[in-house]
Amino acid sequence: MECKTILAADVASSFRDALKQKISERKIKAKLVGYLANKDPSAEKYAEWTARSCKETGVLFELRKVNREDLEETLLAANDDDEIHGIMVYYPVFGGGHDQYLQNIVSPYKDVEGLCHTYRFNMYHNIRSLDKAKTLKCIIPCTPLAIIKILEYMRVYDQERPYGNQLFGKTITIINRSEVVGRPLAALLANDGATIYSIDIHDVLLFKKDIVKQKHVSSDCDMKLEQILPISDVVISGVPTADYRVPTNLLKEGVVAITFSSFKNFEENVKEKASMICASVGKATVTMLQRNFLRLREYQMKNPNLPELRSY
Amino acid sequence: MECKTILAADVASSFRDALKQKISERKIKAKLVGYLANKDPSAEKYAEWTARSCKETGVLFELRKVNREDLEETLLAANDDDEIHGIMVYYPVFGGGHDQYLQNIVSPYKDVEGLCHTYRFNMYHNIRSLDKAKTLKCIIPCTPLAIIKILEYMRVYDQERPYGNQLFGKTITIINRSEVVGRPLAALLANDGATIYSIDIHDVLLFKKDIVKQKHVSSDCDMKLEQILPISDVVISGVPTADYRVPTNLLKEGVVAITFSSFKNFEENVKEKASMICASVGKATVTMLQRNFLRLREYQMKNPNLPELRSY
Repeated sequence: MECKTILAADVASSFRDALKQKISERKIKAKLVGYLANKDPSAEKYAEWTARSCKETGVLFELRKVNREDLEETLLAANDDDEIHGIMVYYPVFGGGHDQYLQNIVSPYKDVEGLCHTYRFNMYHNIRSLDKAKTLKCIIPCTPLAIIKILEYMRVYDQERPYGNQLFGKTITIINRSEVVGRPLAALLANDGATIYSIDIHDVLLFKKDIVKQKHVSSDCDMKLEQILPISDVVISGVPTADYRVPTNLLKEGVVAITFSSFKNFEENVKEKASMICASVGKATVTMLQRNFLRLREYQMKNPNLPELRSY
Repeated sequence: MECKTILAADVASSFRDALKQKISERKIKAKLVGYLANKDPSAEKYAEWTARSCKETGVLFELRKVNREDLEETLLAANDDDEIHGIMVYYPVFGGGHDQYLQNIVSPYKDVEGLCHTYRFNMYHNIRSLDKAKTLKCIIPCTPLAIIKILEYMRVYDQERPYGNQLFGKTITIINRSEVVGRPLAALLANDGATIYSIDIHDVLLFKKDIVKQKHVSSDCDMKLEQILPISDVVISGVPTADYRVPTNLLKEGVVAITFSSFKNFEENVKEKASMICASVGKATVTMLQRNFLRLREYQMKNPNLPELRSY
């Protein structure tokens, strides 16, 4: 069996083309402002990627450097500024709870990252639209969304099955339970029917879809990684350290392996076991950011009288 | 000069008496439910304290132990349960951002801890009421509120000055910048006119009131603790470790010293320099919790058609 290497750029390309075409055909003016309030080199790199990728699709991107102490007021002003159609922030700014507070400052209609409480709440509760008429789809955080698109591209999603249950029967391990990627991803994939083992440094949680509630539920799980990896069809790892490696010898034959860490999380010999690997999701993330953005821009244009939504 | 030791129980007593009298005279039925979803001994102790203190005032308190995985659904049900008038949660549950997400699940009309985004936002922006008619005062988080009441009791607040500026001219150092105590406290005291040095393990921030905006602004500060302590009229410390001590030799003569850590944060000889010390704020915190609760209960009773507020 040969292992296929999947490039996030290939996953992103059809989305990028569609965005480009839509922006050019409909002459959409869509200005996204990215706020950089730290000196984190990886944030700066992400900002560069955003700029480059937006140039390709026709999204007007402007990077604004601000003092972190002025960021909250700047975001509040941006919410009300009709010349700014989308807002993103390169985190961490202060780190921890203060950053989560700032995420709730951004208006849901401009929150291209899908990190405000409205979107988080709806995502965890498998509520897929902002409105009852279901004309306004909710925004999904960019990295989890990119990983979903990669799984669709890999045909881990079974498109013969009904929407919302296309991961039925799949067992997926996610090593990371951050509030920005690991936990939302676990909920999203469980909402689509998969059985998820969510692993962090403290414990293991099991996420499964409750058929009656039509959304995921989670529970404590006393299985160990050594028992979980051999039964996992997909292993998604986001451990932010240089020295962590998922042990290949524990992986299932034909496993799908995805890393969203900026570090290598799999051993060199993973290809001997895996049927597909994706070692970097960044390019898909940046494209999903623009896809989210264009969706919000269309809401703004279609719908001059949007229902009032605060992020809190 | 002699150093006075201020007991939080003495600060709390007049508030406790007033609560007791109000509940008994008006025959108020007020049921507060505390949710314990961890096995943290200090959370259990806090729960015991709440129960004992509620017994004294006449607040009906019920402690409910829940599996942490069921907490979110339980809180959503409690928001809608007319038999539950106030909700509190003994954190940490999951820790980090997941707990902050849970804080935003609680309805602002039942959030006795004042931790949902609505109250946080209003606090940071010095918005003191929920409504334009100013009939519904905002809820302030219990520990910061307890410390304010201690400072009022100590007459650090100058009641000759107008409300909102009674700390004018005071320099206060706060060693802790958590989202639950240190940062809100810094903002609240700055909103009342003080100059605040907010210190955490990474850096120092300066919080000051902006007279035009009528709320605090913060900025990076390159002063060191050695320069800040000698000019501080009040030092409030909340370092959660056994080995940290504020060095007495750096303190100003006549300083007011307050600890909200469960560890001793000042040296034994602090009394040689301090004019007043308060070594534990817990009893005032529990009373403020009930004061917040009764305020919310009165909103519920007075006002059957409260404006719709979500915590997000």
